[in-house]
Amino acid sequence: MLTILLALQAAAALAPATPKSPSEIIAGAPAADWVDMKADDLLVMQLAPDRAGKARRVVIQLMPPPFSQSWITNIKTLAKAHWWDGTSVNRVQDNYVVQWGDATEKKALPVGMQQTSEQEYTSFVPGLKLNDMPRLAYPDAYARGVTFRSGWQLAYEIMSAHPVTDQSGKPIRSRDGSNAWPVHCYGMVGVGRNLSPDAGNGAELYTVIGHAPRHLDRNIAVVGRVVGGIEHLSSLPRGTGALGFYEDPAQPVPIASIRLASELPQAERPRMQYLSTESASFAAYADARANRKDGFFNIPAGGADICNVPVPIRKRP
Amino acid sequence: MLTILLALQAAAALAPATPKSPSEIIAGAPAADWVDMKADDLLVMQLAPDRAGKARRVVIQLMPPPFSQSWITNIKTLAKAHWWDGTSVNRVQDNYVVQWGDATEKKALPVGMQQTSEQEYTSFVPGLKLNDMPRLAYPDAYARGVTFRSGWQLAYEIMSAHPVTDQSGKPIRSRDGSNAWPVHCYGMVGVGRNLSPDAGNGAELYTVIGHAPRHLDRNIAVVGRVVGGIEHLSSLPRGTGALGFYEDPAQPVPIASIRLASELPQAERPRMQYLSTESASFAAYADARANRKDGFFNIPAGGADICNVPVPIRKRP
Repeated sequence: MLTILLALQAAAALAPATPKSPSEIIAGAPAADWVDMKADDLLVMQLAPDRAGKARRVVIQLMPPPFSQSWITNIKTLAKAHWWDGTSVNRVQDNYVVQWGDATEKKALPVGMQQTSEQEYTSFVPGLKLNDMPRLAYPDAYARGVTFRSGWQLAYEIMSAHPVTDQSGKPIRSRDGSNAWPVHCYGMVGVGRNLSPDAGNGAELYTVIGHAPRHLDRNIAVVGRVVGGIEHLSSLPRGTGALGFYEDPAQPVPIASIRLASELPQAERPRMQYLSTESASFAAYADARANRKDGFFNIPAGGADICNVPVPIRKRP
Repeated sequence: MLTILLALQAAAALAPATPKSPSEIIAGAPAADWVDMKADDLLVMQLAPDRAGKARRVVIQLMPPPFSQSWITNIKTLAKAHWWDGTSVNRVQDNYVVQWGDATEKKALPVGMQQTSEQEYTSFVPGLKLNDMPRLAYPDAYARGVTFRSGWQLAYEIMSAHPVTDQSGKPIRSRDGSNAWPVHCYGMVGVGRNLSPDAGNGAELYTVIGHAPRHLDRNIAVVGRVVGGIEHLSSLPRGTGALGFYEDPAQPVPIASIRLASELPQAERPRMQYLSTESASFAAYADARANRKDGFFNIPAGGADICNVPVPIRKRP
């Protein structure tokens, strides 16, 4: 028996390593590769309990600078004013979005709301170059390049050696980088608006619950992503009105409260982490998403679109 | 008054035409551009009524030759044998799939089930060339080319001038075309399977309810798409077990019946149409999806991925 066991162990040691699946790579990532989300960047949305009386909590992480900061400032102002309490989820359109806010569109806004501008749908990112993330240098139908930065999926156009001029038009230095924007992937959160030049103020929000509507990129402000409890939104009944708005007054889902996590008692704060997109674990994960070789797969795709490589998120262990 | 009215009419005639939205193009497509789906290619799945007693009917269109025909033959055999009656929806994984079939995995299969093979995940399509559909010649992260044929979204690799040899290996003619495969877009229906070389028999089915999992392409059989009632699947509660399987025995959703529409009484048959992908209306629609210039949009994307250009479907007027 012992001989057989040893022989089996030797065989296992000699066998070529089975390629790891994306989830195995995530599970094996060292603690140092995980980054804590800041309590001041997390929005906690408490919906009314479901039919069975079960709590429904959705957690949203807001984007870091330089993206969408005027809307995010407003969103923090609205959360601190408890402005969303008593509003509702009013629209659920299949394979598109879930949208929430003030259905009456008449609720007075808090003091201190900032002006927003459609110029801010994109932001200049210094140092961002084509094929910045070589492991995901696959063609994209919507942008010159796509990449990951500080935990977020981005698309960009090339602005390398973008000249910066003084007031007389004389070049004073060149900036290396690109105009970049967050992309509309599943679970991303954006700002509802009326027709241009209105850019929305941040009070009306939506999240994507279907195939990435990338045609919205650069046409609407993306401010964050759902990092917990998206099933409380994505499994809601679809609205039967135009654009998926609820028609029956009994259908809108009441929002009990929306708070910044930093305003909640310590015990109630969600503690979340994302896998550093600059880590070796993330590079291995992205590569495995594009080239699945674990048991189930016969043919590795040899590529992946940016929205099919979601940034891994977990509760802090 | 009359003068003013005429002046306004003249101004309207002179104004540049507002670019049409994709839905306006669909609404304006002539009757001749719509193609009837055959009753023998439609599966009608009747779920148990919902909590409020409302009927839940899902309609699935099966793929035309040359794709996935061995599984589709089995699916028709299973439907004619009423095999799915009394089975259930057992798995709902957020941003991925809803899966249904026999939870016990022990139900005896009907006579006449065909052998299936993973060779059939792709099919040779004569005459299919790179940039076959010039209006959607945008880069794809997963395939050399993507296109539309006979109402379906396809991806392909290039096999132009593929030599065909006789048994001695001597070339006898060359075939012009490509190896093509249906793509995993939102709402597509595929066949569950165990590890390779098992290719599934068609009794265990799933549909995509999230961002297109294109890494499954060529690794699993795609047999059709949901053309009606997908909200009855996509809005189901997510399962809490591994891979989204339901853990609570009360959760699986009973399937009352699955029938071919051709087996239903005339009055109960769904009558569906798709917009011919070979029509001028479809070309205009696909172009508008990739280059939105209607009111809401500031920046046309200048591209679209194949799954963001769903083939328009409607009830026959």
